[in-house]
Amino acid sequence: MEYTDGRGSTPDTLIVPAPPEEPYVRIVPLGGCGEIGRNMTVIETRDDMIAVDCGLMFPDDDMFGVDIVINDFSYIRERAHKFRALLVTHGHEDHIGGIPYLLREFDVPVVGTGLSLALTRAKMREDRSKKDLRFVTVEPGEAYVDGEIATEFIHINHSLAGACALAIRTPVGTIFHTGDFKFDQTPIDGRPADFAAIARVGDRGVLCMLSDSTNAERSGHTLSERTVGEAFAGIFARAKGRIIVTSFASNVPRIQQVIDKAEQHGRKVAFLGRSLQNVLHFATELKHLRIPPGLVVKIDDVDEYEPEQIVVMTTGSQGEPMSALTRLSVRDHKLLKIVPGDTVVISATPIPGNEKSVSRTINNLYKLGAHVYHGASAHVSGHGSQEELLLMLNLVRPQHFIPVHGEYRMLVTHARLAERTGVPNENVFICENGDVIEFTASGGDKIGKTYGGNVMVDGSGVGDVGEAVLRDRKHLSADGIMMVVVTVDAEEARVVAGPDVISRGVFYLPESGDVMEELRAKLVDILSDCSSEGIRDVATVKEHIRSGLAKAVYEKSKRRPMVIPVVMEV
Amino acid sequence: MEYTDGRGSTPDTLIVPAPPEEPYVRIVPLGGCGEIGRNMTVIETRDDMIAVDCGLMFPDDDMFGVDIVINDFSYIRERAHKFRALLVTHGHEDHIGGIPYLLREFDVPVVGTGLSLALTRAKMREDRSKKDLRFVTVEPGEAYVDGEIATEFIHINHSLAGACALAIRTPVGTIFHTGDFKFDQTPIDGRPADFAAIARVGDRGVLCMLSDSTNAERSGHTLSERTVGEAFAGIFARAKGRIIVTSFASNVPRIQQVIDKAEQHGRKVAFLGRSLQNVLHFATELKHLRIPPGLVVKIDDVDEYEPEQIVVMTTGSQGEPMSALTRLSVRDHKLLKIVPGDTVVISATPIPGNEKSVSRTINNLYKLGAHVYHGASAHVSGHGSQEELLLMLNLVRPQHFIPVHGEYRMLVTHARLAERTGVPNENVFICENGDVIEFTASGGDKIGKTYGGNVMVDGSGVGDVGEAVLRDRKHLSADGIMMVVVTVDAEEARVVAGPDVISRGVFYLPESGDVMEELRAKLVDILSDCSSEGIRDVATVKEHIRSGLAKAVYEKSKRRPMVIPVVMEV
Repeated sequence: MEYTDGRGSTPDTLIVPAPPEEPYVRIVPLGGCGEIGRNMTVIETRDDMIAVDCGLMFPDDDMFGVDIVINDFSYIRERAHKFRALLVTHGHEDHIGGIPYLLREFDVPVVGTGLSLALTRAKMREDRSKKDLRFVTVEPGEAYVDGEIATEFIHINHSLAGACALAIRTPVGTIFHTGDFKFDQTPIDGRPADFAAIARVGDRGVLCMLSDSTNAERSGHTLSERTVGEAFAGIFARAKGRIIVTSFASNVPRIQQVIDKAEQHGRKVAFLGRSLQNVLHFATELKHLRIPPGLVVKIDDVDEYEPEQIVVMTTGSQGEPMSALTRLSVRDHKLLKIVPGDTVVISATPIPGNEKSVSRTINNLYKLGAHVYHGASAHVSGHGSQEELLLMLNLVRPQHFIPVHGEYRMLVTHARLAERTGVPNENVFICENGDVIEFTASGGDKIGKTYGGNVMVDGSGVGDVGEAVLRDRKHLSADGIMMVVVTVDAEEARVVAGPDVISRGVFYLPESGDVMEELRAKLVDILSDCSSEGIRDVATVKEHIRSGLAKAVYEKSKRRPMVIPVVMEV
Repeated sequence: MEYTDGRGSTPDTLIVPAPPEEPYVRIVPLGGCGEIGRNMTVIETRDDMIAVDCGLMFPDDDMFGVDIVINDFSYIRERAHKFRALLVTHGHEDHIGGIPYLLREFDVPVVGTGLSLALTRAKMREDRSKKDLRFVTVEPGEAYVDGEIATEFIHINHSLAGACALAIRTPVGTIFHTGDFKFDQTPIDGRPADFAAIARVGDRGVLCMLSDSTNAERSGHTLSERTVGEAFAGIFARAKGRIIVTSFASNVPRIQQVIDKAEQHGRKVAFLGRSLQNVLHFATELKHLRIPPGLVVKIDDVDEYEPEQIVVMTTGSQGEPMSALTRLSVRDHKLLKIVPGDTVVISATPIPGNEKSVSRTINNLYKLGAHVYHGASAHVSGHGSQEELLLMLNLVRPQHFIPVHGEYRMLVTHARLAERTGVPNENVFICENGDVIEFTASGGDKIGKTYGGNVMVDGSGVGDVGEAVLRDRKHLSADGIMMVVVTVDAEEARVVAGPDVISRGVFYLPESGDVMEELRAKLVDILSDCSSEGIRDVATVKEHIRSGLAKAVYEKSKRRPMVIPVVMEV
């Protein structure tokens, strides 16, 4: 396994001191510090250890061919004997996406609210390697206790149902982890965050708070989910034809608002996309969704209604190539065709990196004649802005503070906010993944560093794609590859077959016959030079082939393909 | 050459009817319609033809290894005998970046204002293939006449100096091309757009207007460049240490504002980055910049001053990997090191696709302890918003309208704006690149379609990288490549060397010895099966190797590398 953390935490620079004699708690963020995604934090006392969340991150552009990025579980592995449970704050990919990989290795209960576990279970079904799951459902307000760590789940608002903050009681003090949150004073389900519980936890004293930094750079207050409903009301009133709405599948409050507005405007709702169907099923079962009888129709039956009687909810808010909306936008979906007069509402903002693909989808929808609403006109964030972060800090009044879930600049900005509410500068820890923060009765400090790097998943391989493989893929992607194969008679040092030149991704071959023939002639010269100079060592011959061909190709085309010489001896 | 226009304009669907008997003018946008970049429009009468601008576009993520994208000059090539001149509206890359490629093939004068030509000449120096250039400098207000086409250059505002709109008089009527523009009522150089000239052109009647759609989706009015100066004033007043400002090198008004604020705050200015040095040189020579004597210092001398006496202007506002700011952000620049207390001002917004790299640079600067201002806090757009587009439409009052320079949705939005000012719906043409619009005394219409596709430049190759090469590069980038080489005795159908398996970008080899050995054993089996089944045809043996190895690798790793079997016969 290779450790590829961009911030230099190679295994040889890692040190985790032995635990102290006195009672302690260690907080180790394994992911989500300095990045958006793969959130995971380890909380460890002398005898017990839990983890909060186990997310995935989508690969950067330069992680060629990588499917997802998960966390390095080494720190947990080295302390597996006291690993008691994985606690889940909510069911988003960046909080649960790594769980199938964690459970392959560690047989621990997964603890969370109903929807969080339903979404996790759906992921486990995709991953068939694990049969017996120990899932423990808790309701907000309940606690989960194992050993000397007791965790209370506290209802907060976020862009899906069942999201919780965690008050984690340890022998040294309480750790408060906000999860991802916003304070919505007028949420769709009528349940604002449990201010009483948060305030009570704060009142009893909090040793350290970890808080969501995603929107730390945004001033003011994130708008209520209800304002999206107001925007929908305007869109529904104006729309003459069908309405197609896309959002994150797990955004249950958003689904509810689409259902409510459809009912008010006499439209039926059909759902398109497997993940949306899944969520619909769980959320209805768990009573997070109220669907009037007869409102939902099958997607196959949509054509039986007039356009103005139909709303379709679909996946694809991020312009994902295989998603329903992307396929609709290029008229490549069997079940539905966009026609002029349709209204498409993209009720989400692009995740950084997805801007171009979302934009492409919007352009394609315009070309089909659809009206398109997107961005802030039909979406609000699920993460609290500065005023909410400050309110959380003032409710909890932590002794120490660790901003989490954000890029470095967001963590720094959040740290400054905490200091403004009175947390002393020296009690604020801006962490990198793998930092080990230890608290004892005498205070807290960064005391070490463990494995916090990326583990890349490609196909069924976990962690076997590292820098070397990515470097090769990058080189191949930019310039292609040329192989030279030649068979020589080892005794006589004579070419008996070849040289053959095989190229992929360098030239357009049907039009490059002359070039290839020239290069082949060049290779014949190189080999004959080797022969006349009496060079018989295969490694040297290969190097002559490699450098000679690379030079010839560069002179011809200013390109630098990977060149692989193969010399077979008979 | 391959035509890869995403919108389906393959050569065989292209038709350009023969010209009519009566006088006519044809307008052919070759680039910039449905995309941001590679702007170019051909204007053609019976005897003469000019082109407006000749830009480049930066490659999309899926154009692996492509350096830049330029226009297809086929339409010009087929009418080269009457190609009279290239007129340049301004010196941005998306308007001049393709000129070196155009001039390799066509010996026409390039006509534009001093700075436009200076920036073009700098590009030609990079491209040494062309020795004798015919550059014709015009001042705003002057006209360039060749044959039956006479073009007046009209001063407008944009984010660099020397930008012009063009009033192109033809026998059939006047074509008004706005170039890229905004209406800045309080510009830094004291020269608002030449409203009188625009209104006069409008008054005399305009057959068709082509107008910049970049900000067509933004309501209201783009802020004046002067407001950036106000933002700078606040930043300069607060900054305790050095100030490092980055912007587009060609943004002369922005450079002027940095110089002005530096002077007011008693700071010297140093410049870092070659393109910035170039622009500084041209712009000073052309009197677009007023630099007080003694204000500019060499970058090597910066350390001789106190931090609060220094401003450094640098390139790298887009997070380009090799740019000065990017290297500063990772402490990889010989001439300058960022230290805590430095203030960095990124006076630009990321071009779509560059969001992640700009964000990475900002995070890295935070890590070095710099204060960072970025985005709207220190930048205004150079493109007019809806109110300015409407004002232009009302000043020019064109009979026909073609929105250009924008993605499809921006063109549609701009078209709706034009209709609101009274341009009849049937006189508005939303074009794809390569559309041919013809005007005669009896009206105008889309009459044909010519080559409007992308021409990709990779190294010194222009247009030889097409879909097939990109498909290979994409495959290689995602999954790598495995080659199997085996030498057989053709007569005896016996393996005499190999099989050897060579892999790049698939597995991390030092840890994959077992896997490779397994795969090799599998291949030995495949070859021996071929042999015992009497299969001697090389193509069939190769197919057995290819499919057998692909299957084995997929079962092992769920990866699908490119598999290349090579069978050498001796």
